[in-house]
Amino acid sequence: MKRTVVAAAACLVASVACAQSSVTLFGVVDAAVTYTTGSGPAYTSRWQLTNSANSFSRLGFRGNEDLGGGLSASFWLEEGLQNDTGTGFASNTNNQLNGTLGAGTLTFNRRSTVSLSSSTWGELRLGRDYTPTFWNTAIFDPFGTGGGIGANQLYFSGLGGLAAPTGTRASNSVGYFLPANLGGFYGSVMYAAGENVSNSTLPPATPGALPVSNKNDGNYGGVRLGYQSGPVHVSIATGLTTYATGDLRVSNLGASWTFEQLMGLRIMGEYYVESLGAVDGRGGLLGFSLPVGAGEIKASYARYVRDPVGNVPNPTSSKLALGYVYNFSKRTAVYATVARLTNSNGASQALGGVSTSPNHASTGGESGMRVVF
Amino acid sequence: MKRTVVAAAACLVASVACAQSSVTLFGVVDAAVTYTTGSGPAYTSRWQLTNSANSFSRLGFRGNEDLGGGLSASFWLEEGLQNDTGTGFASNTNNQLNGTLGAGTLTFNRRSTVSLSSSTWGELRLGRDYTPTFWNTAIFDPFGTGGGIGANQLYFSGLGGLAAPTGTRASNSVGYFLPANLGGFYGSVMYAAGENVSNSTLPPATPGALPVSNKNDGNYGGVRLGYQSGPVHVSIATGLTTYATGDLRVSNLGASWTFEQLMGLRIMGEYYVESLGAVDGRGGLLGFSLPVGAGEIKASYARYVRDPVGNVPNPTSSKLALGYVYNFSKRTAVYATVARLTNSNGASQALGGVSTSPNHASTGGESGMRVVF
Amino acid sequence: MKRTVVAAAACLVASVACAQSSVTLFGVVDAAVTYTTGSGPAYTSRWQLTNSANSFSRLGFRGNEDLGGGLSASFWLEEGLQNDTGTGFASNTNNQLNGTLGAGTLTFNRRSTVSLSSSTWGELRLGRDYTPTFWNTAIFDPFGTGGGIGANQLYFSGLGGLAAPTGTRASNSVGYFLPANLGGFYGSVMYAAGENVSNSTLPPATPGALPVSNKNDGNYGGVRLGYQSGPVHVSIATGLTTYATGDLRVSNLGASWTFEQLMGLRIMGEYYVESLGAVDGRGGLLGFSLPVGAGEIKASYARYVRDPVGNVPNPTSSKLALGYVYNFSKRTAVYATVARLTNSNGASQALGGVSTSPNHASTGGESGMRVVF
Repeated sequence: MKRTVVAAAACLVASVACAQSSVTLFGVVDAAVTYTTGSGPAYTSRWQLTNSANSFSRLGFRGNEDLGGGLSASFWLEEGLQNDTGTGFASNTNNQLNGTLGAGTLTFNRRSTVSLSSSTWGELRLGRDYTPTFWNTAIFDPFGTGGGIGANQLYFSGLGGLAAPTGTRASNSVGYFLPANLGGFYGSVMYAAGENVSNSTLPPATPGALPVSNKNDGNYGGVRLGYQSGPVHVSIATGLTTYATGDLRVSNLGASWTFEQLMGLRIMGEYYVESLGAVDGRGGLLGFSLPVGAGEIKASYARYVRDPVGNVPNPTSSKLALGYVYNFSKRTAVYATVARLTNSNGASQALGGVSTSPNHASTGGESGMRVVF
Repeated sequence: MKRTVVAAAACLVASVACAQSSVTLFGVVDAAVTYTTGSGPAYTSRWQLTNSANSFSRLGFRGNEDLGGGLSASFWLEEGLQNDTGTGFASNTNNQLNGTLGAGTLTFNRRSTVSLSSSTWGELRLGRDYTPTFWNTAIFDPFGTGGGIGANQLYFSGLGGLAAPTGTRASNSVGYFLPANLGGFYGSVMYAAGENVSNSTLPPATPGALPVSNKNDGNYGGVRLGYQSGPVHVSIATGLTTYATGDLRVSNLGASWTFEQLMGLRIMGEYYVESLGAVDGRGGLLGFSLPVGAGEIKASYARYVRDPVGNVPNPTSSKLALGYVYNFSKRTAVYATVARLTNSNGASQALGGVSTSPNHASTGGESGMRVVF
Repeated sequence: MKRTVVAAAACLVASVACAQSSVTLFGVVDAAVTYTTGSGPAYTSRWQLTNSANSFSRLGFRGNEDLGGGLSASFWLEEGLQNDTGTGFASNTNNQLNGTLGAGTLTFNRRSTVSLSSSTWGELRLGRDYTPTFWNTAIFDPFGTGGGIGANQLYFSGLGGLAAPTGTRASNSVGYFLPANLGGFYGSVMYAAGENVSNSTLPPATPGALPVSNKNDGNYGGVRLGYQSGPVHVSIATGLTTYATGDLRVSNLGASWTFEQLMGLRIMGEYYVESLGAVDGRGGLLGFSLPVGAGEIKASYARYVRDPVGNVPNPTSSKLALGYVYNFSKRTAVYATVARLTNSNGASQALGGVSTSPNHASTGGESGMRVVF
């Protein structure tokens, strides 16, 4: 404690230098007017002001210190914002299904890490961070994983892949990242702890049954490897989360090619498989983004197929999205997106918080603005 | 998502420039020692350390970017503070009576917006923001709407006007503001969505009754127009919130005149009406503020009359408040306030968290300090 | 309200000056990998990523303004971080056992104050702040009161001393601090309000019994006096919290001596007594810290004895901790700690969230890194 007081006092005396050399305040505020509707007998529709339709709204504090000899230390604290209402997001403290804490309030749910980095051996990172299996779902979707109707993340959540506690980030993680400058190759591995005690058990399913250990509930392990150089970007990742109610496995492969000769057209695709306990699902995505002056046109087609549910074979959903972003500057943009989602084999996925009848379509449009700071 | 990563990375490299050019950290910390008491058989009294008795405590982050051609983009994130306890405030996410989220924790409940502004056509603002019908209750009260015993906001809450989810701010709002430089005229209009789905209904009041739609529950619309030039300031506002349990209408008119020849004396008044379902209430306020050296004397008399409740006619409350603020600087002040509230026709309003018997008075005093940064 | 708007506007125009002259953003991010285990039939063990094992993780905003004539105004807003999960800490709003608010979310629970300070008469501080009886438990423990297995704070919590709502901090406090430059003497006194209304009562323990007043529930008063000059530091503190269920009294005495001739070796000790209602407990600590190059070795031995519980006499716990901290810079350090805790007379204290059988030992080790900004 004394150490901290001393260090903080040193920082206070030199507060200007402190603030300028070591801490960066950053963020995104993104809001859009969104209309979505389902179809069929059970349809609903809705007008909303939404957030994060182009990029996730956030507020963060980060800094790094050069320790000499190629070594540096850094921290990163980033909270998610629901700026349509002024609220924040819960974090999940143990990577388990019961670990959500802080619904609607500000937490550093997006990232909360401290790192030691070396130019030769890479980076060791401790805290709450993105899982290796998340990144490909964002990088190879022209709409990212934003909260808007363009993003295709919902397809990745059929079995809970992207919606699982470890789908995007994990708490209690130790991560290792390869150093930069490996000729375009990069990679990372993460282990995250559910932190149950050694004799933790589930309540018996039936009275008198033997208790089942859940000491590994919420443990996550994952790895990602990629190559990015010139026009090429390809990346593969796989991860396993141990859940007491059935393990979750997620693997994905993404690739993109940027054609500088074709006005900077970038085409991209992703294929992924997920399984939760004994049920499998798989999906894919094709998309492109095309710079046009100060703007950008983007589009994607995605499809998700799940194992049969009961005697209905392979519920399937498909989605087409088309968007335009106009960049006033590097920081400020306005945008518009339209999307249409179709269902078959009993699926009833719908856009943006509405309902659609099984095998019926859902459509929507939205327009908003985004500021990065 | 990719776009953001790129933009944020650009910001990181130029972090000093980023921090200096675009983000302002600001706030208020205000604390006071407060004693309040009721009277009559059921009275209670209380000593408290309170917050925001002179100005609402807050912490905020805001910034703007000049886009050229008279256009600019900006964001504003502001959280309320209860600095006597280190806690924050809930926000209301859907402008409905059931929408409160995050009690006691930090949220950007005060304001959370992103804007596009033009010197010629004005400002378009999206997010959680003040309602047009709020402002006159603050600007034309010499004690503002602070949490202290001087402010008269409680009179505005007889039917829920200022205490309603949309009384001060609304989530999911789209606002438009007239440009500056209209010769002293200003104005704004806001629409905010309750965001219920199209087939949302209330539970039937009696079993077997037909369900009643509440798809518009929490929708707010309001407008404000004003004129401020030289010594004169006058403003009028009206708004309607659709509640499933009965609509809330609020209208108010405020005016003030500053006499530079009389040491800068500013006299002000406000008149307002509110109705909730079939019940009406109305109130008024007269007050002044008078600069005296580095200090300021201020006083107000307010009165609120509500429609009869049962067979008790027109519960009525009146309040007299007197305060002194000494400004050490533009940012730092100490202050003291005394107030006395009287009740008749069955009313039992009391100051600062105590109880008073019907038709009995409540009195209080407080003294504190305020820092603006 | 008007005053604030004016002041904030002035601040906005001069935002760079504002940010540089008056607000300091500061914090600590500290994370460690921790393994702890108990022993005996009922033991558990656990691997965790923990926070704050060297210094408590935090994010804060503070500033001060020179008002001239030796007078200054300042504010301090500091939130605790659980950076292993991205969450925060609750605050306690009324210093009572039922006053916890905001579990897991960001609040300014660590400190939330506004002050007026004079070079001649000292400092008056209002808000949520550390209690006078807290400081000696941190300053005279070589491991501070951090969340790690080295810190001995758990011994101070046998009867709730350090774990009580007022054990570390109090809300609704008015504090006074002696001015600096009293020849090494310093001191402070604090009163904090539970803020119950005057006629507040506990529910009767048995039906028909007379209600018992709890109007003073959560009121705290405490005082601390110390002397620090050259190698010597000694401090004494005492405090009383009124609880409806039995008052809590805490007193402690700490001292340290730094031997500059012996490489800067600092030896330290603390003795304390606490009582909750009719039950007493007492403890002591001996420790040292020794700078070695860029590192520091530290160790402590602590012991806590409580009054008999039933017919088991004096449950007693002892703890030995040894640690090493390597400082890359003033801000960045890596560290490792091992600790062993032993129990007798029925005690079953254990380290870091595991269980140990009565009279059995608990052991643990941890290693982590800490960044101060």
